[in-house]
Amino acid sequence: MNNINYFFNPKTVAVIGASEKSVGKVVFENFLSKKFKGKVFPVNSKYKKIKSKKCYKSVLEIKQNIDHAIIAVPAKSVPLVLKQCIEKKVKTATILTSGFSEIGKRKLENELKKTIKKSEVRVIGPNCLGTLNSKTSADSIFLPKNKLIRPKKGSIAVISQSGAVGSLLLDYMTSQNLGISKFVSYGNAIDINETDLIEFLSEDKSTKVIACYIEGIKNGKKFIETCKKCKKPIVILKGGLFEKSAKAVSSHTGSLAGDGKIYSGAFKQAGAIQAENWQELFDIAKAYSQPVPKGRKMLVVTDGGGFGILATDAASKKSIKIPVLPKSAISKLKKMNFPEYCILSNPLDLSGDVSADRLAKALDIVLKEKSFDFVLLIALFQVPNLGKEAVKKIIQINKKHRKKPLFVVSAGADYAKNLSSKMIKQGIPVYETPEQAVGAVSKIILK
Amino acid sequence: MNNINYFFNPKTVAVIGASEKSVGKVVFENFLSKKFKGKVFPVNSKYKKIKSKKCYKSVLEIKQNIDHAIIAVPAKSVPLVLKQCIEKKVKTATILTSGFSEIGKRKLENELKKTIKKSEVRVIGPNCLGTLNSKTSADSIFLPKNKLIRPKKGSIAVISQSGAVGSLLLDYMTSQNLGISKFVSYGNAIDINETDLIEFLSEDKSTKVIACYIEGIKNGKKFIETCKKCKKPIVILKGGLFEKSAKAVSSHTGSLAGDGKIYSGAFKQAGAIQAENWQELFDIAKAYSQPVPKGRKMLVVTDGGGFGILATDAASKKSIKIPVLPKSAISKLKKMNFPEYCILSNPLDLSGDVSADRLAKALDIVLKEKSFDFVLLIALFQVPNLGKEAVKKIIQINKKHRKKPLFVVSAGADYAKNLSSKMIKQGIPVYETPEQAVGAVSKIILK
Repeated sequence: MNNINYFFNPKTVAVIGASEKSVGKVVFENFLSKKFKGKVFPVNSKYKKIKSKKCYKSVLEIKQNIDHAIIAVPAKSVPLVLKQCIEKKVKTATILTSGFSEIGKRKLENELKKTIKKSEVRVIGPNCLGTLNSKTSADSIFLPKNKLIRPKKGSIAVISQSGAVGSLLLDYMTSQNLGISKFVSYGNAIDINETDLIEFLSEDKSTKVIACYIEGIKNGKKFIETCKKCKKPIVILKGGLFEKSAKAVSSHTGSLAGDGKIYSGAFKQAGAIQAENWQELFDIAKAYSQPVPKGRKMLVVTDGGGFGILATDAASKKSIKIPVLPKSAISKLKKMNFPEYCILSNPLDLSGDVSADRLAKALDIVLKEKSFDFVLLIALFQVPNLGKEAVKKIIQINKKHRKKPLFVVSAGADYAKNLSSKMIKQGIPVYETPEQAVGAVSKIILK
Repeated sequence: MNNINYFFNPKTVAVIGASEKSVGKVVFENFLSKKFKGKVFPVNSKYKKIKSKKCYKSVLEIKQNIDHAIIAVPAKSVPLVLKQCIEKKVKTATILTSGFSEIGKRKLENELKKTIKKSEVRVIGPNCLGTLNSKTSADSIFLPKNKLIRPKKGSIAVISQSGAVGSLLLDYMTSQNLGISKFVSYGNAIDINETDLIEFLSEDKSTKVIACYIEGIKNGKKFIETCKKCKKPIVILKGGLFEKSAKAVSSHTGSLAGDGKIYSGAFKQAGAIQAENWQELFDIAKAYSQPVPKGRKMLVVTDGGGFGILATDAASKKSIKIPVLPKSAISKLKKMNFPEYCILSNPLDLSGDVSADRLAKALDIVLKEKSFDFVLLIALFQVPNLGKEAVKKIIQINKKHRKKPLFVVSAGADYAKNLSSKMIKQGIPVYETPEQAVGAVSKIILK
């Protein structure tokens, strides 16, 4: 087994600094969850028992081999604890503790680097949020589950240098009903960095797309080569593009952020897609749940004229083409006897009184059309006759025409969100605005 | 009373085309709500009674004067019904019916125009969604309340040429807990158009800012003059900026959309702010719940380093300045004995273990600083020690330093959303991403 794998599939876990409060409590209790099938050992010299489990004075006291140690002790104690882990031949360690190079304490951090140099342990952190495997519930994220509900199982892997951005990305995924395969917040990266993780995730069967938040890259050449070889699409949000922000980066995760243009060039060379902002990172990542469109020709189907117009505005900005609806399609649509106020054009405006039936008939016709590379469906569920039934049909029709990529725009409050959520669960990407949908799709099209 | 006022404050309302199903049902039941204090009369020759209310064969049969008639009958019957309204001296009429110039039926629409020409009735529509006054619950929106929860009372007025965009804007406001003063979807605008509405809302006491979705403007010169005189800020999203989309507009509300650049120029001349997309329209509108910053100097306070960096990236893109934290402020902050890993700089990074108390102390110091025009607080509630108590303190401190504009970034799923919602209710604009916050604020700053 690749050593990095032990972060995500450990059979034995030691929580060093396990506690009855704060970080040590959250992480220990994560591994007590019934969903986690391995064994967990609390380590803390202050306790004899935690949650009725025997507490160990040091990791060396544990008889079993340890696949994964989570270190949540004060910064000054980390070097000793890490040495003990190495002595114990712990396979992987995540150091959650902060207070190292990010606040100028480079000497303390260098001590850690030296310590691990000749050992076989693989280390994530320090100054990180933890890791998550949604499949095994191996979860060392130190934020409580009531505040940060973990996203459901899915195919997006998320790696984030920043813990804060990482936690927000997770929470955002939960709010959008997006599924995750693996999550890593890797902080100051004294050992495992973005390149190692991309290499690992390239081979990870549960991952279809890799979403990254990166502040600084340790080895540019190796990073580019690894991305080029990667079997999965990579989407990157780079923090610290400008002089001011680069300065903030260096006091954040202790890495050196370079010029934005240099990074953008490197990402391009690496074949990775650069997201322009935090939201776009996921807009793009979720687009990959449909096949990548083979070209830039879009058909818009809408139940609201105004939104059709905003979609065409967005298309013009992003060099997405909006070809006319072919005569053959128009004549098929005419046979359906839709009301005269439906506009049989591109955008195809099915009008505000559209029913599930009218929508399904129209989609079934246009998804067959070869003159379009993908279809953008604007389904505004605020109209009187569109609801659950329509969603059922959209999902069916998407399955029927699996090769033609379908993207959906649907927005609004709870009623619309619940319906969107059902589509997302079935792998249909739903966006809140036409601009988001068109923007994301335009970035994954390779031609 | 200004005639337009009768749309929003009618004492007597006739729903022509009231029914037991569809549009006529929704609108009639809106006015049966206990919150609406006026009288409502159903008109439909097919019924004797609807919801145990006497139903009239025509508006002429009603004895009382009618302040406001809502017309929801088939297109071909609209001219006759409108004539009857004029004979009855109805003060205002909203024609919800579609099937006029937007599908090429210009003759039928011209008949309506001729009909109202010599009368005193003021008309909204046809082909529109209706109007709403959140204060009086005068609500002619034909979308059912279970699908489109009306936003709560507030100070943003929304006018939308497109019904679909309008309904989404309303639903979006509900989802963001944003309050509305008045809503108008004005469709084909045979009488009342965007210019009339801006003129009216300029004097409307409950409105602080006007958010518009416009496809085409009927009289450019008058529009610009009216905007210039308007006492409230105006934010405009223009649909149909490009050739393709302009074509879609002309088959949507029957108006002629012009070149995007001409419109942008006109908006600038008018002193209105143009939103780049649907989301930005509200991002900008809600920014006005704080005082407009006097300049472009921003201080960022954060509990997550990565988000601080994204905020500075966004600032660089939008020409927002990030001056250094003055020594005087640093020495005041130092006296607070925050942990050493807090970074006393701009961004001011209070670290992921920030408490309500630490946050409040820091905010109280920096909001006094004269070297910044506004403060952007990034409050990520996923961290362990930030919750209700912090929100309470943020609201208190915002009240204390009322003149220094405070904008907040907070994102995530339900836990974070509930807390954001509390701040929005108190007039503190909360954004989901640093890019949205900085983008919106940069647009309202006049210098």
